[in-house]
Amino acid sequence: MDEIRSTDAGQLKVTDRTRHRRMRENGRTDSAALNEVLSAGFICHLGVAVDGVPMVVPTVYGATAETLYLHGSVASRSLAADPGATVCVTVTHVDGLVLARSVFEHGVNYRSAMVYGVPRIVADAQEKLEGLRVLTEQAAPGQWDYARRPNRKELAATTLLALPLDQASVKISAGPPEDGDGPDAALGLWAGEIPVRLAWQPPVPDPQLPSGIEAPAHIAALLGRAG
Amino acid sequence: MDEIRSTDAGQLKVTDRTRHRRMRENGRTDSAALNEVLSAGFICHLGVAVDGVPMVVPTVYGATAETLYLHGSVASRSLAADPGATVCVTVTHVDGLVLARSVFEHGVNYRSAMVYGVPRIVADAQEKLEGLRVLTEQAAPGQWDYARRPNRKELAATTLLALPLDQASVKISAGPPEDGDGPDAALGLWAGEIPVRLAWQPPVPDPQLPSGIEAPAHIAALLGRAG
Repeated sequence: MDEIRSTDAGQLKVTDRTRHRRMRENGRTDSAALNEVLSAGFICHLGVAVDGVPMVVPTVYGATAETLYLHGSVASRSLAADPGATVCVTVTHVDGLVLARSVFEHGVNYRSAMVYGVPRIVADAQEKLEGLRVLTEQAAPGQWDYARRPNRKELAATTLLALPLDQASVKISAGPPEDGDGPDAALGLWAGEIPVRLAWQPPVPDPQLPSGIEAPAHIAALLGRAG
Repeated sequence: MDEIRSTDAGQLKVTDRTRHRRMRENGRTDSAALNEVLSAGFICHLGVAVDGVPMVVPTVYGATAETLYLHGSVASRSLAADPGATVCVTVTHVDGLVLARSVFEHGVNYRSAMVYGVPRIVADAQEKLEGLRVLTEQAAPGQWDYARRPNRKELAATTLLALPLDQASVKISAGPPEDGDGPDAALGLWAGEIPVRLAWQPPVPDPQLPSGIEAPAHIAALLGRAG
């Protein structure tokens, strides 16, 4: 994101592809919003075109300020066949249901980021290791220093993609329904939001774990993090 | 799904596109699994190709046994330009983080459905109303009978897509890490799963709601449903 910061003070490039056409009120183009949305999760939906047909696969990711690293095994075949192809990565957090007086005004509160770019298959072993660190720490902070790191063979068997974060858009929808001051308010119906969040549950030990090995502090801490 | 049931006893068509190439052990091709995954959520990621570039947008959906109805406003422009184009709709539920002894064996437990097809823009007012009922009831059971239903003008302003459910694949990943009986077990590290679920929170009334209007029972019941 350095490039963006220096050239336009935290504003993401608005290209024809990322310009908000609908729900303009929800569109954000600052890199701070992008980083917030990306850092709040670890699962994205990666869209690639395979023979002109879109394929959308869920996969894990990790984000630095400038780069989105993602596990690309499922998409690697199509990317190898068309290495210059643009992909679309979308990260969505659902925050709540918006229940209005009218069905038409019902909706979902959410935060979503959409990143376009030509992914690079990370070949350099050092960068691959660093990308996997980012990805692992995003999902489970502390695990990179606790678990056994990938060896040479495992690194070779992993497809890691790197996508620049300079062509992205963010949409955030929040707040109550919008028909509270319209004619439907007279219907006397309840209206509001039902928030939803991800709730982490207590760790479930592997049945093969010998007794006496307790979950370390960084794993117990996962319970307390925000969804 | 009647067509599928009658022709091949609950098995989804396995085409070249939906055949599982990776994680074969997780692949399911029965329609019961598809219906289970689809009925457990209300947000999907819709992938369309726009000038050959994939665009992945989150949107709401509702599923019957045979049809996926989805809100198609964002995608409608590209679909209108290329009405015979195939789309990919992916629904993913994250169930937990799998923490293994080695980073390489880390993973995510999830249930995911991927549906391919050529969507039909629903034009008939009666079918549109029925599709919106399915979609509304999937997200917020009870709201269709409680809130004001769409009028003619609102119906005309809504783009609803219908996608047949006959070309789909399901992947389910569950269970503990798989390195409990390998050489890494000797490392003496904790390993297991951190489950995660969607947790619905108490309803937040619209600030514009007059006092004395309580949330009806079907809204309070949303709190108790499984994520």
